[in-house]
Amino acid sequence: MIIAVDAMGGDYGPSVVCPGVLTACERHQDLTVVFVGDQEKIKPYVDASGAAGRVSVVHTLEAVGMDEHPSQAIRTKRRSSLRLAMEMVRSGEADGCLSAGNTGAIVAGGVLVVGRIRGIARPGLGVLLPTLKPTLLIDGGATVRCKPETLCQFARMGSAYMTSQMELNAPRVCLLSNGSEEIKGDDVIALAREALSADKTVNFGGYIEPNEVTFGKADVVVADGFTGNIMLKSFEGLVSYGMQLIKDEVLSGLLGKIGLGLCYFGARRLKAKLDYQRYGGSPLLGVDGVVVKAHGRSKAPAITSAMDAAVRAVQGDIVGVIRRRAGSDASDEADRTKERLEAE
Amino acid sequence: MIIAVDAMGGDYGPSVVCPGVLTACERHQDLTVVFVGDQEKIKPYVDASGAAGRVSVVHTLEAVGMDEHPSQAIRTKRRSSLRLAMEMVRSGEADGCLSAGNTGAIVAGGVLVVGRIRGIARPGLGVLLPTLKPTLLIDGGATVRCKPETLCQFARMGSAYMTSQMELNAPRVCLLSNGSEEIKGDDVIALAREALSADKTVNFGGYIEPNEVTFGKADVVVADGFTGNIMLKSFEGLVSYGMQLIKDEVLSGLLGKIGLGLCYFGARRLKAKLDYQRYGGSPLLGVDGVVVKAHGRSKAPAITSAMDAAVRAVQGDIVGVIRRRAGSDASDEADRTKERLEAE
Repeated sequence: MIIAVDAMGGDYGPSVVCPGVLTACERHQDLTVVFVGDQEKIKPYVDASGAAGRVSVVHTLEAVGMDEHPSQAIRTKRRSSLRLAMEMVRSGEADGCLSAGNTGAIVAGGVLVVGRIRGIARPGLGVLLPTLKPTLLIDGGATVRCKPETLCQFARMGSAYMTSQMELNAPRVCLLSNGSEEIKGDDVIALAREALSADKTVNFGGYIEPNEVTFGKADVVVADGFTGNIMLKSFEGLVSYGMQLIKDEVLSGLLGKIGLGLCYFGARRLKAKLDYQRYGGSPLLGVDGVVVKAHGRSKAPAITSAMDAAVRAVQGDIVGVIRRRAGSDASDEADRTKERLEAE
Repeated sequence: MIIAVDAMGGDYGPSVVCPGVLTACERHQDLTVVFVGDQEKIKPYVDASGAAGRVSVVHTLEAVGMDEHPSQAIRTKRRSSLRLAMEMVRSGEADGCLSAGNTGAIVAGGVLVVGRIRGIARPGLGVLLPTLKPTLLIDGGATVRCKPETLCQFARMGSAYMTSQMELNAPRVCLLSNGSEEIKGDDVIALAREALSADKTVNFGGYIEPNEVTFGKADVVVADGFTGNIMLKSFEGLVSYGMQLIKDEVLSGLLGKIGLGLCYFGARRLKAKLDYQRYGGSPLLGVDGVVVKAHGRSKAPAITSAMDAAVRAVQGDIVGVIRRRAGSDASDEADRTKERLEAE
């Protein structure tokens, strides 16, 4: 299996991407990696690694910055590490690609370079949440606002993902809303609710509130990219804030220090459970190839688990699964061709 | 000062509302309370209280349930405890009212019974967040989706609230979004951003993400009621989940028990900081009278702090402040009259 890696993406670039990916190479013996990026910066990591024989480098100095305009960057930076990695997926040279770069550019590249799966209007970022039992949020931030049909497609893709990748039987799919009663939500969500209630392919559980999400009351939580991202960053923000409070309020005294020392193993387990780095990789679902996004702030361990996610997605043929279970024969061929031409 | 209290609201009704309010009476010697609800259930608490002389009861058996359709309940249940309490605010018999009941019904009653402040299109629930420094979220869930102008009104009302009630000088007001860069957000938020950037009366700081909110990087966070509610419930959900994890992972072993015992004071401070019960009361800003909503799951201490919020709002004449600083001469008189007539 070949994974193309955008070595220049993320807040730390090759200095965390390369070590993280190389650790994954040691873990997966059938994995071959193509780093795309500045070879001067990549080489030292590869040379020092035991997996050097399974790693090659495609050199380029162009890269997409974290703050660049997404689709514009994909269109104009034709030799950027992100775009080249995605082109390898489109051409079949690679089975999948990984980037910790600009989320918007990954989404734009997914649509414009890799292309959408037939019948899927918009891609959704599938984010595994560190909740009581693993829950897939779709969309974590790919498609800011959605039509009801798009939410329904997210529901079907999320269901397919959890069935195929997490071996769940009839995963419970819920729509994220501001309350669980039917009168809650807005017009878009209400229409999606109606459609999903009638959809026999999805085990639909109605609305869910974020405070029920944390306790794992759904296997798949469906939201537009804006709302999903707000929930995700609220969770992240509260974890960071909680850690800060522990430092300020508990570790500030000697008794607290000793006490927390005694809690060491439990606290470590707790921290590990809430750590998003464990769930480093989010597949961009709905595009016609495996595209995995790692968090921009990823450190090496998060990159390694993002690679794990990419390997699992290729092994489980998640693209084929979604094509069969969530795609359709909808004749959006013209639109898809147009999008691809836009990228030419 | 007279506060009318919907004694029947909330998940626990008079059994927590009455004790919570009576504690507030002991704290505020100039406070007079009118309980509205089933006198059989209210009387025992009043009789046992030292503040009985400053407490009266308006008897009614009708109440709005937590799951009822909000505006319908307000229109048809003319003798409900919530509506009667609000009518006392409208008529001037009370300086403000408090309810832990159905949020939607409180909002509908605020608009239809108490009435909007001139020029304020929609009310917003102002929720003080237990972040690193107190931050006001507006809207916590009153107006599900908003026009850009409504978000701007929320910004002005939030700014007025934090200036007048928290004595902040030029509070920093930010729009909640899925990223801080200008290209983030959706169309509605982008238009609000433009308008607020040009508004000299607000110290506008652009977009803010939820993970910055927790660290108090804004004094006022503006969002539509849907998005604000998602963030709020994400915070709440993660706190509950964290507490559960501490129980499961840390307190499960003897060492962890002893360790957490040693952290007792720090942990108590930490818990207190994250506890929403401390910030029990959320004013419904934009209506022409003091209306404070307590969380439906409030226990007595949360009701007491909600009463504190109501007392502060009356003392600081928050309605007058908003009328002067955020209201306008917009001739929406006809609409306001129509709304009031709808309630008749």
